[in-house]
This record gives sequence, structure tokens and C-alpha cells, in this order.
Amino acid sequence: MSFAATILTLYPEMFPGPLGASLAGRALREEAWSLETVQIRDFATDKHRSVDDTPAGGGAGMVLRADVLAAAIDSVADGRPLLAMSPRGRQLTQERVRRLAEGPGAIIVCGRFEGFDERLFEAREVEPVSIGDYVLSGGEIGAFVLLDACIRLLPGVMGAASSGDEESFENGLLEYPHYTRPVEWEGRTIPEVLRSGDHAKIAAWRKSMAESDTRLRRPDLWERHEGARVQSPSGARQKKKDR
Amino acid sequence: MSFAATILTLYPEMFPGPLGASLAGRALREEAWSLETVQIRDFATDKHRSVDDTPAGGGAGMVLRADVLAAAIDSVADGRPLLAMSPRGRQLTQERVRRLAEGPGAIIVCGRFEGFDERLFEAREVEPVSIGDYVLSGGEIGAFVLLDACIRLLPGVMGAASSGDEESFENGLLEYPHYTRPVEWEGRTIPEVLRSGDHAKIAAWRKSMAESDTRLRRPDLWERHEGARVQSPSGARQKKKDR
Repeated sequence: MSFAATILTLYPEMFPGPLGASLAGRALREEAWSLETVQIRDFATDKHRSVDDTPAGGGAGMVLRADVLAAAIDSVADGRPLLAMSPRGRQLTQERVRRLAEGPGAIIVCGRFEGFDERLFEAREVEPVSIGDYVLSGGEIGAFVLLDACIRLLPGVMGAASSGDEESFENGLLEYPHYTRPVEWEGRTIPEVLRSGDHAKIAAWRKSMAESDTRLRRPDLWERHEGARVQSPSGARQKKKDR
Repeated sequence: MSFAATILTLYPEMFPGPLGASLAGRALREEAWSLETVQIRDFATDKHRSVDDTPAGGGAGMVLRADVLAAAIDSVADGRPLLAMSPRGRQLTQERVRRLAEGPGAIIVCGRFEGFDERLFEAREVEPVSIGDYVLSGGEIGAFVLLDACIRLLPGVMGAASSGDEESFENGLLEYPHYTRPVEWEGRTIPEVLRSGDHAKIAAWRKSMAESDTRLRRPDLWERHEGARVQSPSGARQKKKDR
């Protein structure tokens, strides 16, 4: 059973789009994952095939109807995680991505306009997911993000060369900086430690760079990382105390 | 002068992709923004046209060469903000999006593989930008996110109907929930206050829902919001103290 993605959208022609190229595209052709799109408009019930209406209580824009979306969802629901891309959702994390990639796939609802009628989330246990603190014109690009992040973790997609174990967020830190040839470029050289051949020293340098970059660029991540270390009985800080 | 986007990528065929449809696509055809892609590989200097090499100090994957990327950047640099999509960057926010959308456009470098040779960021003042705490197979989907978020804010793109002033993150909160017809659906009704016609009561209800949803779903955003109120002399909490 490969990872099965079903996308509910008003723009099925956007798919596979960028997911048809490069790593995800090859994986799609090799059937490491599958993609199905559902046109939400096919589930409209009136003769104008309308999927949205004006917001109750007034305000700008249009709101997607709960009844139409629920009918579209019911046509494909099969126990796979049911997600809707929405800036009102919890933020996507690498840990959530990893859990999704280990599962049977996902049904992803892509909104447009002002968003969804809130009753949809109560009536169908749809999980609202946000990819970040900014607003997009619709959920489709969010679905690309979510799927691309999952697909690269599927068995065989990245290959053994790059397991993803050492990259950003896997240990609550940003990844360390990378360097490659040429050794000297515009008067800047690759840090000497990386050319030393001393694997222990290289590992220590990379760890210290990952920590200092996280502290400097992402104090929020650093705080959570330090908090987890204090709370965890197996954490480094706790161990020191126990000695 | 419209918003000019230049994308440096190994996959120029991915563009405009999803940005050629819907809102962004119409804006592209109406020349509210322009799109140019640059193939990074065209700036390789060896006969194999290589753009990457193995990481100094060892490890999995390949690293994009600073010299090749700098040459690609130098071919288009003209004072526009110069960004590189990278999980090591600062997180994209709606405020950063708004500032970019008010400017002349952006040059966006899309990485692949393990990332960029770090010397690029020192030598060319490239701003690393992350769209969230997860890892993608390349920077192209991040570039779609960044551009879509900017394009919808360009003059005339959304139209006067939806100015973006009331949406998520604009005031440091999630947006309030939306409802639309039918009034009753599967036994669930639109909250009565929204059908009252009392605009002051509706505004108060929406504010309180935005606050409680933010507190519940995004304690991190809520803390920052409350922190800003305490610090700002015009904030509500400060006013109470002054009485």
C-alpha cells in the first residue's frame, strides 16, 4: 500500500503541478504515492453550482458552504487523516509530517475566499492545518507543501544517501551550515575543522554551530529545545544534575 | 512599475505552475506582477555543468556551490530584496510579506539537495527565509508560497471587496470563525448573534472568538500578542493600569 493523497479543490488542474517534477514526480511515476483530485463544485446542489455564500453577520468576501464540502468529503472518506489547509489551524511541524508519511496517506481540503463554514470542523472531524503565519490565496499551495514534505520521507524516495535524520528540526534545532568545494572562494575558505579529517571534532563543531545558529535565528525553537532537555529525565542537563 | 519576481532554480519548468491559475494567474496576465526564471545550471563553469559537490567534512547528500550560485545571482541582482528559501532561515511572517509586496519585487534562490554553501550568505547578503518548521525537497514550493502571499496583496489583485485587513495575523491573532447559509445544517445552526443584525455585538463576538481560538490553538501567538499589549503605551491593558 503506497501513500494515497486525495485533494478536494476548486482547481484540480493545479495538480500534480510542482509535485509532477523532480523527486516527487519520479516517486509518483514509480507509484511510491498516488494522487487523486476531487472537484468540490461537483457536489453543489443548486442549478448555479455554487460552493460559497456571503458571511453570516456581514463582512468582505465569500465563505465555503459546509454542506457542499461535507458532501465532497463524504464521497472519499475512508479513515485516512482528513486535513483542511487553513491559517486558523495548528502549525505544521516536521513531527506531524513524519507521522503522516508513516500512515496510509491524507485527504486534503483546499479552501479559497474567506475560508470554510466553521460547522464543517465540528461535523466531520476535519483537522485544520496551517503551514505558517501568513495568508495565501487558497489551500492548494499549502497542500503542495504538506505533500512534498511527506513524499520525500516515503521509503525509497530519497534513497539511503540522505535519510533525513540529521536535517533541520529533527532534533529540535536548525541544521548546521554546509560547505563544499572550492576550498577558497572570493577570499573565503571552508572552516579548517571541516578539512581536518577528525570526525569527532567535526561532529562537535557541527553541533555547536547548530546550537548557536538556532539560538540566534530562532530563539523560540531554542527555548523549546532547552525546555525539553530540562523536562526529560534522559536529557543532557538532567544527567549533569544527577551526577 | 509592477512587482517583479526573478526565480533562480534548477527546475524553471515548475514556474509559473500554480501561480499561473486563479488569482495569481489573472494578476500575471494583467501584468500586476512579472515572472522571470533563471536556470542555475547555466552558470556552471566545468564541462559537466555541475552545480553541487560533496559536503566538506563528510555526510550525506550534495551541497550547492557558492561560486555557481553567486554568478547566477550577479547576473540579475539590481537592488531588489535577495532571498533564499532555506529551513535555516528566519520564519516568513505576514508582516514580512506585506513589506515585500510594497517593494519592487524579489529575487528568490531555490535550493535543492542538502542546501547552500554557507559562504554565499556572507558574500552576497542573501536573506535565508523559511516558510515553516518542516523540510521540503527544494525551495521551489517555498517560492510559490512567498509569491502567492505577496501577489494577493498587490494593488487591484483582490479587489476592494477583501482588503486583507481583517484576516489572520494582521492583528497578531487568528481570524474569527466564519459561517454562511444554510442557517441550519445537520442540526447545527449559525450562531444567533451573527443573525441579530446588531453590528456592535457581532464585532464584539468576533473579537472574543479570535482571542479564544488564538489562546487555545496558538498559545505562542497569544503570548506575543499579550506581550505587545503590555509594552505598548496605547495597549488596552496599559490603559486600564493608567486609570
